Amino acid sequence: MGDTMPTIIIEGPPIDIEKKRKLVRELTEVASKIYGIRHITVLIKENSPENVGIDGELLLDRKRKVQT
Amino acid sequence: MGDTMPTIIIEGPPIDIEKKRKLVRELTEVASKIYGIRHITVLIKENSPENVGIDGELLLDRKRKVQT
Amino acid sequence: MGDTMPTIIIEGPPIDIEKKRKLVRELTEVASKIYGIRHITVLIKENSPENVGIDGELLLDRKRKVQT
Amino acid sequence: MGDTMPTIIIEGPPIDIEKKRKLVRELTEVASKIYGIRHITVLIKENSPENVGIDGELLLDRKRKVQT
Amino acid sequence: MGDTMPTIIIEGPPIDIEKKRKLVRELTEVASKIYGIRHITVLIKENSPENVGIDGELLLDRKRKVQT
Amino acid sequence: MGDTMPTIIIEGPPIDIEKKRKLVRELTEVASKIYGIRHITVLIKENSPENVGIDGELLLDRKRKVQT
Repeated sequence: MGDTMPTIIIEGPPIDIEKKRKLVRELTEVASKIYGIRHITVLIKENSPENVGIDGELLLDRKRKVQT
Repeated sequence: MGDTMPTIIIEGPPIDIEKKRKLVRELTEVASKIYGIRHITVLIKENSPENVGIDGELLLDRKRKVQT
Repeated sequence: MGDTMPTIIIEGPPIDIEKKRKLVRELTEVASKIYGIRHITVLIKENSPENVGIDGELLLDRKRKVQT
Repeated sequence: MGDTMPTIIIEGPPIDIEKKRKLVRELTEVASKIYGIRHITVLIKENSPENVGIDGELLLDRKRKVQT
Repeated sequence: MGDTMPTIIIEGPPIDIEKKRKLVRELTEVASKIYGIRHITVLIKENSPENVGIDGELLLDRKRKVQT
Repeated sequence: MGDTMPTIIIEGPPIDIEKKRKLVRELTEVASKIYGIRHITVLIKENSPENVGIDGELLLDRKRKVQT
């Protein structure tokens, strides 16, 4: 089982590089420990608020409401 | 079953924000009705014509042919 | 733009075939109308409750709690 | 930003349910802390060794070699 | 650039193992040559005809029509 | 089986347009031959080095080490 290469794809909002560093380090630690596999690939996907819909509404529009 | 959160990922060409609003609203209505689940996440993925291949050819090149 | 082929991937719980029929028909109608593109591919992904986590807990375990 | 719902898709080998519990709990803790968002969806995808290729070879065939 | 690990996800119909072997071998050759990267992961996803919609109709139903 | 439309999603580093042309042409040839299906969609996903983690480290940081 040792040579499979699990891949983690994480779909979230845009984040800064320091958070990306932590995300990759800590998600890999968790997955590596549980699968018993050292090689893990993480792909961080940053979705802008105008490309995400929650319960039928763009995230962009939900934010505006909260602010006003 | 009520607390799952179906996720719809839609891979298409770039579109304007008004179409994104409609897409999110209407895809969510359909999925929500059929699954019987209120919480739906939609991720709109915009692919530029140089990153999409149809039948072996970049979309970019197919468009050029049509125009000439 | 007419020859791109948008793909919709929908990650949800298992459903019966009649719901699949409706899902494909209606998601395609929506996407087709908004993108102005006739050819749409839909991939329905059925996730068992032991393979979905919501807020840190397997869906399987959340359901059990609700039932007891 | 608080109402986005990051989704983690993890493509790995088949695992037992106790590992799934841990995976969901710990991946969610990490993502929740770094994004500052409570609602996280995790989708565990189990890939059989005959559906994964590493460096041009099915995982199934690589395992056989290791065993002999 | 040499240590990235491109991942190819291929969504298609169910196929036998000999075709999977070829698919993994040949897709990897192509990607490896063009990216200039040796390590490639391929994930083969097999979708049953009742989980795929083409132009608004389940693949399952389209096949039946062709046969009759 | 002839009217399914397999979709290939390839997650890799950014590449120039000439490589994209080759990638789409050759991946399609391979998949088309093995599946026995003419219509293939390819989606090229370009991931910047700050959005990819290998074995717990951002690709961006791994490259810097190699250069110094």
